[in-house]
Amino acid sequence: MTSASPEISHDPRTGLPTTTARPTSRTELAETMARAVTAVPTLSRVAPSERARWLHTVADAVEVAREDLVRLADWETALGTARLQGELTRTIAQARFYADEAADGYFLRVEHDTADQQTPSMTRVNMPLGPVGVFGASNFPFAFGVLGHDTASALAAGCPVVVKAHPAHLGLSNHLFDLARSALAAVGAPDGTLGIVHGFKTGIELVQHADLAAVAFTGSQSGGMALWRLANARPVVIPVFAEMGTVNPVVVTPLGATRIEEVAHGLVSSFTLGHGQYCTKPGLVLAPKGGDLAACVADELARLAPEPVMLTRRIADGVMSGVKALQDAGAIVALQLGGDGAGWSAPAAVLEVPLEEVKAGSKVLEEVFGAVVVVAEYDTPEQVLATLTELPGALAATLFTGSGEDLWAARWLETLSNKVGRVVLDGWTTGAPLVRAQQHGGPWPSTTQPTATSIGARALERFVRPVAYQGFRDELLPPVARRSNPWSLPCRVDGNWTRARAS
Amino acid sequence: MTSASPEISHDPRTGLPTTTARPTSRTELAETMARAVTAVPTLSRVAPSERARWLHTVADAVEVAREDLVRLADWETALGTARLQGELTRTIAQARFYADEAADGYFLRVEHDTADQQTPSMTRVNMPLGPVGVFGASNFPFAFGVLGHDTASALAAGCPVVVKAHPAHLGLSNHLFDLARSALAAVGAPDGTLGIVHGFKTGIELVQHADLAAVAFTGSQSGGMALWRLANARPVVIPVFAEMGTVNPVVVTPLGATRIEEVAHGLVSSFTLGHGQYCTKPGLVLAPKGGDLAACVADELARLAPEPVMLTRRIADGVMSGVKALQDAGAIVALQLGGDGAGWSAPAAVLEVPLEEVKAGSKVLEEVFGAVVVVAEYDTPEQVLATLTELPGALAATLFTGSGEDLWAARWLETLSNKVGRVVLDGWTTGAPLVRAQQHGGPWPSTTQPTATSIGARALERFVRPVAYQGFRDELLPPVARRSNPWSLPCRVDGNWTRARAS
Repeated sequence: MTSASPEISHDPRTGLPTTTARPTSRTELAETMARAVTAVPTLSRVAPSERARWLHTVADAVEVAREDLVRLADWETALGTARLQGELTRTIAQARFYADEAADGYFLRVEHDTADQQTPSMTRVNMPLGPVGVFGASNFPFAFGVLGHDTASALAAGCPVVVKAHPAHLGLSNHLFDLARSALAAVGAPDGTLGIVHGFKTGIELVQHADLAAVAFTGSQSGGMALWRLANARPVVIPVFAEMGTVNPVVVTPLGATRIEEVAHGLVSSFTLGHGQYCTKPGLVLAPKGGDLAACVADELARLAPEPVMLTRRIADGVMSGVKALQDAGAIVALQLGGDGAGWSAPAAVLEVPLEEVKAGSKVLEEVFGAVVVVAEYDTPEQVLATLTELPGALAATLFTGSGEDLWAARWLETLSNKVGRVVLDGWTTGAPLVRAQQHGGPWPSTTQPTATSIGARALERFVRPVAYQGFRDELLPPVARRSNPWSLPCRVDGNWTRARAS
Repeated sequence: MTSASPEISHDPRTGLPTTTARPTSRTELAETMARAVTAVPTLSRVAPSERARWLHTVADAVEVAREDLVRLADWETALGTARLQGELTRTIAQARFYADEAADGYFLRVEHDTADQQTPSMTRVNMPLGPVGVFGASNFPFAFGVLGHDTASALAAGCPVVVKAHPAHLGLSNHLFDLARSALAAVGAPDGTLGIVHGFKTGIELVQHADLAAVAFTGSQSGGMALWRLANARPVVIPVFAEMGTVNPVVVTPLGATRIEEVAHGLVSSFTLGHGQYCTKPGLVLAPKGGDLAACVADELARLAPEPVMLTRRIADGVMSGVKALQDAGAIVALQLGGDGAGWSAPAAVLEVPLEEVKAGSKVLEEVFGAVVVVAEYDTPEQVLATLTELPGALAATLFTGSGEDLWAARWLETLSNKVGRVVLDGWTTGAPLVRAQQHGGPWPSTTQPTATSIGARALERFVRPVAYQGFRDELLPPVARRSNPWSLPCRVDGNWTRARAS
């Protein structure tokens, strides 16, 4: 037993405690990891369709408990029942999505080369890495929580998961875990398929544990980078897939000037969504001079009159200090409202900054995690190209164009796509669609592994590693690697895709 | 200009100098990187089939200069003209392989999802990272040299390359670079497509350069880890694909005992190949007690009587100190011969060690880069399973089985495949076949990115990053991402593979 103090979740509307959790002791962590290790061979060996069945069963169990879960989540996060109902629906869909994607088998990337005069036969297939530590996010208690994208995609890929519960919603985390554990047991999954731990120090010990094979994290720059450094200091370094907050840019082309009102309306909806607590929140808008976008946004914001209540006291404090830092960096507040309510309320704000202040190293390019957006106006499209090169890597960007032939759109797009993982045309980055081709992960420092995604079909590929088998006869190989293809997996055979037998 | 002393290559047979290179100055490095950056848009925009044409032209130019290249390589490496002729043939085949793989377009992993009631259209495609720094190996002056796997796969993927020439073969490196530069210019590739730099300090500055996007390295643990740490200390961290030397295990099942003579014969051929200077050299053999494999290997080695001459003085010294370290760790020399010739000669040796000394942390599990192998005998197959869990990650392993139903082979295979990137059945790990399904890269610490490979179809994927386009019309997108599919790329459209148009 450690003597660490308990973690406490709170009702953000009042600041009163909701749930207390005793930190997981070293002995308990060791037991949890031992169970995960015991589950590895079974999870690796079963057909992906079997793991898909497990995930669908978990999804069913979550659906049955919907009302309880939403009530508990709203108490601990103040995100509102409407939003949380939607998020839960999405989370259930995610689990089924990764289940189906696993069963489809593309993520295994099976490839067979037939022997010839010069070369032996070779088969390569993606194998699960082993136990994955998942650090969920505060801002998506369902979608990036105990049973969120990381957990569902890791289980689908064949890896046991140990979740470090987020202290902002401990009650919900425990409830989700209990539901999933029962469902997994009922469907015959091994005991160690899913585990949970609590406590800051335990989170560190989890990353350092010799049997952990990978880490998935969603949250702040400071949190993600700390875990990445911890993992890099291990005797055996493991990958950390940290998806972190950044400033997501929006650019409006000169022709887009005709749509400033529409942009302002959509922007306010987007940057205030979930009280601005989205890693995909648009944070910086470059708009043509003369449209006075900042004033339009201020009008829209005043009309909407949001009263943000943040997930934690630290986040609420961060909004205040973030707005202050933007001002210190040369931004001027066009409108700031709210922030004086009960509990962890914080203001919403739109600021304006001269374009020349948007440069590498400026605080203008650091995320304020809340309902805060910065507008900068440009004179010429060339200025925008120069400014875009100053931006750090980000998760997503929006390109707003005009009707007709928009000459600058394609040029800007090329530069934008070097800076982000996803570009949205004439729409908003918040609410990353759950589709196979989704890419939720951009260049450093928005993610520690810019080739990875935490949403979409390729999310599973974070948790596997290719292994090649040279000169083998089928009967010695695991089913996944057999040329007889007992699981009817999609394979590339001598360069061509098929679902048939390779031999 | 720095005042760093020049680098000097030598004739290993005599220890006399062959080529001197002045270290690249900071200014020259800046110019080289600026040219690479200028080449980025062109390399990204052209069809992969165009880059394929460039690579085939380079391959043609190398073929024409074959005799000069082999003579120069033999002078600087002492690897022998027969081996070097073969390696050059292979290197030309590699360039054509990556060219064809690029033109095929699978590495782009294009995926289209069609819009529906709930979700917008989404397209994801792999885009080139930007300039890649390539640190070639001493032991494969062609295959992992200036125009080796890393360079060819990075160019094929659409990234300019700046090579840090290996000091062991500066003359050859410069000659290869000049050939490629002329060929690339003749075929219309941009000036900055390929660059070269010299000097230890310049290599560090290259990794630290703000415009470098990735590093590929082949060589020692100390070298690879140093570059990895350098890259992790950058303001913008970049990936380092370091493929490093490890101890590749060979396990002989109890039934394999009937084939001890055959194993001994093959093992000696394999571990003395290239004077043992292969990252895929078998380093540790677990064999059934009673077969006296060490004595058989000693007999074969005495019959072959190799006279290893190493690539550099440091490598030659490393063989001597490595054999000493193995003895300190409990190994006994069964036979050691040679090492007293001119230049950088070193001994070849077979050692025997008690199985209980094969454990995590022992020097027995550290690579000796040379013609040295260690044999350990086991009593029971269960001992082998326990020993395998002690092994660090490695590039490749061999499983030697007997005829008939070999009960232990499948069980050992599962454990072995957790430890390596490639398992060879009844064959040898040296000479990784050039096939699409090749996986040349294993768990930490054999590579810094165990999901990557430096040989095979997936080698290209090290140098790309996925970008998603949401809600776009075709005409704004680059050709590679268009649903009209002008380049006839293989795509996954709404879950299914095709080469047709998506819309």
